[in-house]
Amino acid sequence: MCCWKGCRPKQSVLKAGNDTVGESEFLKGGFLVIEGIDGAGKSTLCKMIGEHLAEDGYSTAVTQEPTHDEIGSFIREGGVRGISQKAEALLFVADRAVHTERISKLIEKDIIVICDRYFASTVAYQSSGLNGETLDREWLINLNRPIMITPDLTVLLDIDPQKGLSRIENREMTSKFEESEYLGNVRKEFLRLAGEFDFMVIDAEEDQNAIAERVIKEFKEKI
Amino acid sequence: MCCWKGCRPKQSVLKAGNDTVGESEFLKGGFLVIEGIDGAGKSTLCKMIGEHLAEDGYSTAVTQEPTHDEIGSFIREGGVRGISQKAEALLFVADRAVHTERISKLIEKDIIVICDRYFASTVAYQSSGLNGETLDREWLINLNRPIMITPDLTVLLDIDPQKGLSRIENREMTSKFEESEYLGNVRKEFLRLAGEFDFMVIDAEEDQNAIAERVIKEFKEKI
Repeated sequence: MCCWKGCRPKQSVLKAGNDTVGESEFLKGGFLVIEGIDGAGKSTLCKMIGEHLAEDGYSTAVTQEPTHDEIGSFIREGGVRGISQKAEALLFVADRAVHTERISKLIEKDIIVICDRYFASTVAYQSSGLNGETLDREWLINLNRPIMITPDLTVLLDIDPQKGLSRIENREMTSKFEESEYLGNVRKEFLRLAGEFDFMVIDAEEDQNAIAERVIKEFKEKI
Repeated sequence: MCCWKGCRPKQSVLKAGNDTVGESEFLKGGFLVIEGIDGAGKSTLCKMIGEHLAEDGYSTAVTQEPTHDEIGSFIREGGVRGISQKAEALLFVADRAVHTERISKLIEKDIIVICDRYFASTVAYQSSGLNGETLDREWLINLNRPIMITPDLTVLLDIDPQKGLSRIENREMTSKFEESEYLGNVRKEFLRLAGEFDFMVIDAEEDQNAIAERVIKEFKEKI
């Protein structure tokens, strides 16, 4: 049954002789978020899932936060170097507010949006004592409530920070967020959020193809 | 008595033969906020008060929001044209977070900071139904709580929107915030906040010198 304006039939349904033509299934949009510390393999997983779903006939869009929109670029380009964590958190959430409007429009057009980081990243990173400044996690969660939408599925790629860091040690750029002890706190906070907000937690050291398959299976059941 | 690191003696105390030398009074910093809709006369009042206090020997700094710092300039320059009110509110508060750090440092240096608009403007303007979008005032207030400091005195210059608009009709630039019906809602919200947060409410049509004198008298009693 289709209850979504503008649904398109699945590729399989279009095949001649397909038994399900009379009871067409339709492909609709959805929202999948991949969370985790750097080195967990989020970007690779987002890309793999996007490709797999596209092969299945879905329209997909892979995106990330901070975005490359105006506010995200302002953050990335260091427009706010040296500002407090509170101000930084507000900018991240402002970027997310704009991003979420864009994501919602894509979902309405029956596109599956796969997003590398969403609200949990702000809460986990900003409440975990970077430079000794720990923000109130309730304040951070409440900042996000009216500007975010609930993903159909959020996956937490869980990894030991040392292992995560060893995976990215050859990257040219590392950020202030990539320090082992701090990342240990971030990991704990991600796991806490996973419990509270019903994320799917996956050991990031499992085989990547197997992870992608598990996520896609779970996600398809949710949308 | 002085309990503020780095206090400077009042000019009068420095005069030869002044009786109070033995019991020096010291000039310390403080934080005065002037709020109100456009056309109420905030900018003029801020300037007048700054000049009067400087004549009294105080070090003063007149500032405004949105600021001319990085985030404030980003807002002013339309970096975020067309974004939702929620995103805009978050940017205003991010700007305030940075501004507040700067204000705090000035106050610690015994400077009186006079600020044209502060947190009440965000709440009043963003919760009053601009373009039909009304943000939750509790969310707006809570956004601000951990990033703001409490002014020693906040003055609300209250004026009928029609009269306020007629005062500024010759300005070259008007903004989307300057529409009479909307400003009527903003005014009501300012008055509500004034009751809740103990602002000093002044009829903006009173004589400007008399207003400045009243505000300075009240402010000196608070710091």
